[in-house]
Amino acid sequence: MPADSQAQAFDRFHIDQQLLRQRAFNLRWATVDEDVIPLTAADPDFPVAAEIREAIGAHVADGVLGYGPTEGFVGFRAAVAKRLTSIGVAAEPDRILATDGAASALWAACQAVLSHNDEALTFDPVDFLLPHCSERAGADVVRCPLEPGTGAIPEGALEQRISARTKAILVCNPHNPTGRVLRRDELLRIGELAIEHDLIIINDEVWSEIILGDVELISIASLSPEIAERTITISGFSKTYGMAGLRIGFIHAENESLYRKVLEASGAPRTTFGASVLSQVAAEAAILHCDRWLAGFLDHLRAMRAMAVPRLNALAGFSCAAPEGTYLLFPDIRETGSDEQELAERLHDEARVAVVPGLSEWFGPAAEGHLRLSFATSEEILDEALGRIEAVIARG
Amino acid sequence: MPADSQAQAFDRFHIDQQLLRQRAFNLRWATVDEDVIPLTAADPDFPVAAEIREAIGAHVADGVLGYGPTEGFVGFRAAVAKRLTSIGVAAEPDRILATDGAASALWAACQAVLSHNDEALTFDPVDFLLPHCSERAGADVVRCPLEPGTGAIPEGALEQRISARTKAILVCNPHNPTGRVLRRDELLRIGELAIEHDLIIINDEVWSEIILGDVELISIASLSPEIAERTITISGFSKTYGMAGLRIGFIHAENESLYRKVLEASGAPRTTFGASVLSQVAAEAAILHCDRWLAGFLDHLRAMRAMAVPRLNALAGFSCAAPEGTYLLFPDIRETGSDEQELAERLHDEARVAVVPGLSEWFGPAAEGHLRLSFATSEEILDEALGRIEAVIARG
Repeated sequence: MPADSQAQAFDRFHIDQQLLRQRAFNLRWATVDEDVIPLTAADPDFPVAAEIREAIGAHVADGVLGYGPTEGFVGFRAAVAKRLTSIGVAAEPDRILATDGAASALWAACQAVLSHNDEALTFDPVDFLLPHCSERAGADVVRCPLEPGTGAIPEGALEQRISARTKAILVCNPHNPTGRVLRRDELLRIGELAIEHDLIIINDEVWSEIILGDVELISIASLSPEIAERTITISGFSKTYGMAGLRIGFIHAENESLYRKVLEASGAPRTTFGASVLSQVAAEAAILHCDRWLAGFLDHLRAMRAMAVPRLNALAGFSCAAPEGTYLLFPDIRETGSDEQELAERLHDEARVAVVPGLSEWFGPAAEGHLRLSFATSEEILDEALGRIEAVIARG
Repeated sequence: MPADSQAQAFDRFHIDQQLLRQRAFNLRWATVDEDVIPLTAADPDFPVAAEIREAIGAHVADGVLGYGPTEGFVGFRAAVAKRLTSIGVAAEPDRILATDGAASALWAACQAVLSHNDEALTFDPVDFLLPHCSERAGADVVRCPLEPGTGAIPEGALEQRISARTKAILVCNPHNPTGRVLRRDELLRIGELAIEHDLIIINDEVWSEIILGDVELISIASLSPEIAERTITISGFSKTYGMAGLRIGFIHAENESLYRKVLEASGAPRTTFGASVLSQVAAEAAILHCDRWLAGFLDHLRAMRAMAVPRLNALAGFSCAAPEGTYLLFPDIRETGSDEQELAERLHDEARVAVVPGLSEWFGPAAEGHLRLSFATSEEILDEALGRIEAVIARG
């Protein structure tokens, strides 16, 4: 990288710690002691793109901020349809619903599809929101273990966990916390099983724009019309564009009756839930006007990944795969002799770095013996945090 | 009023129809034919105050828009506590939760308090959200009829509807759609019944800042500590400040265990639901910096009420009380010989004015034979709409 573009990149991905200490919550800067670096919740340390700030400013200028459309602004829905079409999903704007964040989209999808006595099939490990939303809808959660190290779906593992009660498969792609991008053959198997057993696929793609490896993001609804008609695709704008505080996500279902069920479950038709009009405008700008910003962000993340993975693997007892997607590291730390909670506490107390312990309650039993670290911060901060961790682990 | 301040008021409460036709949804300008004037959803036709626009602009300027605090910004919660304290409610900021609108606050309160087989006691008529959220929580709704014409709570009417299954009383004060501001003796009776029968009071005060008559808004939680400890107070910023599109409301419960239940039910601790940080900033500015704006808005609404009520009462078969609170008119139109649906359709088709028919599904059986009209628009628009209605009714 030439010196000037490096300087520019540094400037752009420099962060303002003082501001973050006032503004960044959910286990992050504003919630930890002043000398602690948080590599915790999956939320970047960077401000939103200028294009997003400008879009909000333009919309708010005339002050008309009354009720938006029940399902979202035409512009928002068209932008999301464009994004989905670009990854091969035949998305029409009128099958897209704006929601109060990706998590609320997941909640609505589960409420629409799952009931008491149903089984929801998902993975182990996986982000707690997938089982949590399934359980809130009354379903029992069945977890399919992923292959340790790679995060691949073992041959036959899903099949043997499908029962007459199974109603849905909940997929997270790219996968949180393993960072794996699911392969075409894995997705095809999921799709075929869904068809065979008449299941709905709830596909959480909140990480779909953070692809760091030389691997293609395949959206399961793009595989065939038969798979598409039983898939609900969910995403949001917090991970990629740094706007978790704006609470904006979406649901797509090509199948009209499935879409209607999700819409009804979402609360939007009765105004009990909905997405802020400013957040929709911000998300529309993110999709339509932030390609260059995103390319720069991904370059930065690749550089951070290249720095962090070897340094974690050099730590005694750590084993860490390079994530193909997401900006999450998920090292196996069992060989350190500490469990995830002890080690996270030690890093907090001695290194003054906060990480997420791989607790069963957050990611499932298979997460035990792992830590989760986010690297969506500046090179300076990440280097400092890794240096502090190295010093503590070196002391043994 | 001196001529210059009149001109200023006119200017301020003039509306931009073109803009509204792009932006104002939920039965309003953007959803009706171009020649139709909507006096429908309870959302004002005016832009938000400059102070609100400025607060949003200032917050967005640095671009840090990551996760806010689970329960809301300190500043938002402190501002809401100040507002509640000003109406006599002993509110601490740490018992206030920011929500995705007042409707979502009501939903969370019902989820926290009501279960299958419980009874929720509310009124007839009343806005559909109170029974709707009760039913979504699994409860059976029992309606206490209000006194026709005045909207008062008839002596003994609540008492005879309380059973062993009654778990909560849902109050709307000022009342939508009657426009009544509940009196101290009515609220004391509700409070005493709640204590006697161990009920929770869910108090929807979304209209509490729109007091037009010479009557005091009494917040039921201000009446006594015993009543306060079983009261959940809910409000939002859409009706008063014109920011329904920002989806921001709050829940207050003085009782810590009740607050914890509502917080858990809200989804905020798991990020499934929450309030946009920009919407919180806008609401904080509304409470702290918009007193003068609000005083001007209330003056305008009083003038519109003074114009509209006599003109509706002069229509053959119409009988309309002046609302003490809200900007809603709720004329009894039974003497016209038409039902609410027929008359609303006729006004739509012939007068090109959209109003809300008093359908049982929206307001309960007692709303039948009524129309609901909003007068939160400019004098010019309201005069035009009333003139068109007068012409149609005069034709008989």
